[in-house]
Amino acid sequence: MTTVELIRKKRDGHTLTNEEIMELIGWYTEGKIPDYQFSAFLMAAYLQGMNKQETAALTRAMLFSGHIIDLSMLKGAKVDKHSTGGVGDKTSLILAPIVAAAGVYVPMISGRGLGHTGGTLDKLESIPRFRTDLSLAKYKSVLKQCGAVLIGQTKNVAPADKLIYALRDVTATVESIPLITGSIMSKKLAEGIDSLVLDVKTGSGAFMRKTSDARELAKSLIHTAKAFDKKVIAFITDMNQPLGNYIGNWLEVVESVKVLRGEKVDDLLEVTLNLSGAMIYLGGKAKSIQEGIEISEELITNGKAYAKFLEMVNLQGGDISYIENLDKYPAPKHTMEVLAEKTGYIRAIDNYEIGMASLELGAGRMKKEDVIDPAAGIIFHPKIGDPIKEGDLIATLYCNNSENIYESKNKILNAITYSNKKVPKPKLIKEIIR
Amino acid sequence: MTTVELIRKKRDGHTLTNEEIMELIGWYTEGKIPDYQFSAFLMAAYLQGMNKQETAALTRAMLFSGHIIDLSMLKGAKVDKHSTGGVGDKTSLILAPIVAAAGVYVPMISGRGLGHTGGTLDKLESIPRFRTDLSLAKYKSVLKQCGAVLIGQTKNVAPADKLIYALRDVTATVESIPLITGSIMSKKLAEGIDSLVLDVKTGSGAFMRKTSDARELAKSLIHTAKAFDKKVIAFITDMNQPLGNYIGNWLEVVESVKVLRGEKVDDLLEVTLNLSGAMIYLGGKAKSIQEGIEISEELITNGKAYAKFLEMVNLQGGDISYIENLDKYPAPKHTMEVLAEKTGYIRAIDNYEIGMASLELGAGRMKKEDVIDPAAGIIFHPKIGDPIKEGDLIATLYCNNSENIYESKNKILNAITYSNKKVPKPKLIKEIIR
Repeated sequence: MTTVELIRKKRDGHTLTNEEIMELIGWYTEGKIPDYQFSAFLMAAYLQGMNKQETAALTRAMLFSGHIIDLSMLKGAKVDKHSTGGVGDKTSLILAPIVAAAGVYVPMISGRGLGHTGGTLDKLESIPRFRTDLSLAKYKSVLKQCGAVLIGQTKNVAPADKLIYALRDVTATVESIPLITGSIMSKKLAEGIDSLVLDVKTGSGAFMRKTSDARELAKSLIHTAKAFDKKVIAFITDMNQPLGNYIGNWLEVVESVKVLRGEKVDDLLEVTLNLSGAMIYLGGKAKSIQEGIEISEELITNGKAYAKFLEMVNLQGGDISYIENLDKYPAPKHTMEVLAEKTGYIRAIDNYEIGMASLELGAGRMKKEDVIDPAAGIIFHPKIGDPIKEGDLIATLYCNNSENIYESKNKILNAITYSNKKVPKPKLIKEIIR
Repeated sequence: MTTVELIRKKRDGHTLTNEEIMELIGWYTEGKIPDYQFSAFLMAAYLQGMNKQETAALTRAMLFSGHIIDLSMLKGAKVDKHSTGGVGDKTSLILAPIVAAAGVYVPMISGRGLGHTGGTLDKLESIPRFRTDLSLAKYKSVLKQCGAVLIGQTKNVAPADKLIYALRDVTATVESIPLITGSIMSKKLAEGIDSLVLDVKTGSGAFMRKTSDARELAKSLIHTAKAFDKKVIAFITDMNQPLGNYIGNWLEVVESVKVLRGEKVDDLLEVTLNLSGAMIYLGGKAKSIQEGIEISEELITNGKAYAKFLEMVNLQGGDISYIENLDKYPAPKHTMEVLAEKTGYIRAIDNYEIGMASLELGAGRMKKEDVIDPAAGIIFHPKIGDPIKEGDLIATLYCNNSENIYESKNKILNAITYSNKKVPKPKLIKEIIR
């Protein structure tokens, strides 16, 4: 079939064969299909959908567009976690050292922040001299030595994804379950993992605002992981408010370090421990998620997780003196306090706006090319259901460029709605799907 | 709104405003939107549809991408006809001189053949020295002088359509009612007409195989014409077999000349006279379509239509000695007779295959760049319902390059299905919609 015939087939709602999908992705990656044909295909796939078989074939084609990292020289389970992204979601920084300390390898290839969401790479790079652009050899050696490694996507890992994502971004074809599945899974499968824990976020700060969409994505990811013989557990977790209280790159490192040192940040801990517990369980070091959670708690209490974090930062070139003494980090030039304008209970938070408020301060990127300010961000205090009095401190803003600081403040104030009556706290772990 | 937001809006099934459509088409025509974004929009429009208001706005935006020919210096009605194309459809050649002879101006901007269908320009250009690339001044002067003119699309007429059609062709977004409507109507409205008669073909040799699709297209075209205050009548006509008996460029000129000289080719005459009758009626020279038909018949009988044809050909540079003496035209090198392989009644004809058989002989183009052989084509005798005996002459093939002559012959034989029982003749004029 020609490219036009393949586009027409998808346009008319038919199912493409594995070979047809392999051809399309292969041709496009090799530059044999122009962008204007591939974007028509993407829109047809967006609107007509792709079934499980097609999604697995898409993932396979994208995966095999690059090379798959071989970690077979490491004895023992290799487990990664993937989150669909949110505001204040710093769980990777905390759970990677926990799970590594439990004896399970954690090879993580992470992404950068875009729009209202942060990215693990940006957070780690806020640690002075931390390197996320390790060579493959260095990646393997750090992983072997300390059990965890966190790097960025290299050009050899699923190159089709980079090309396709760039095109989806400018053609309104991002929010498609099969296309998202192919993008996520092709990168994760290239890491050389055995098992995967998924954190599919839902709510006002998530890409999937509706729980039903999050569930559909979780199921698509699970089916695809299983098609590649990977063990997998998916959590659907709430993203209707920031996770923890710190938002911004260095600020999220700070909160992660605090949690690793034993500070109790309830919501952040609940999500992180569930994910790390599942990873330890899938890695064969616990008989259940619950036992994995207990092991995780013990590894925080006995200091082993924190020690593992320092070891990983050090191996990746980071200056651990900034971790050991968080105050050593240069304070941002500007701070501003945001005070409550009303009295009542916090009814809802438009978490997308909180993420955008952080972006306005310089903590995020609107476009890939934007440069971020690692020190910028927000410490955001209230949680849904909290009682608040007019004048209470809601948030503190940090930035080195104060150009948009008032816009940021207004976004935060406008993001919060109040109630006169008590409001129940939202359930954090909404579903566990296997 | 940004381009991505406009694509997303259509993707999600919302209605674009007139301004949004004007922006999209304007930006694309000016080269400010890359092909890959516009093709994603086209696929979204294909799958989500566009309502009447959007279709009219699309037409308007495409129309105003170029200039509209001003024919206000000509007193009297200007009426054109548009056919969606078929096999052996030579009505334009016959009706233009008829309607002009009735005192109605016929300014026609026509297209070329593509795929299984022929094009009026190619047919006229088979007349030695006939020119279809007239300047605008010459176009107006021919029209003023003889009342009819037939030229090709100039680069100033709806340039957006050329750009968009080229992209639709390679992105599987051709068969869309609103996009087809915009393409047809933007060109027709640029001609400076007051009224339009539409011949929407349906059947195996038409782009709209199903009558329901043809009806939907007819209604979309009518609505758009009315949105521009044009008078309009649409015919839905049968294209399940060739119209008339001659297929190919010079061959269709020959059959047109025969009809203009008074030869009775029943099916071709029935469709042509209905269309010319409607044009004369819309042009105010008859009180009804029926009266327009009677005027048309009279103009053939009294020789005025044929004289008008000679005048038009002459004014457009054509050598009328070839028209006056059809045998003067150089005979093609190869001819082949195709004989019936069975006895029975003609039950059905795959008219698409007949068109493709003609293309194989050199009469048509697979790609725009292909060069056609004006002398190539088919004289095809049987009509659905006709009784046939094994060995009867079905068709005669003509070509200068015999490379594909056997393939052409096989296509014709395979296109015909027979029945043992009598088969009713299909109704030619299926519907008239105003």
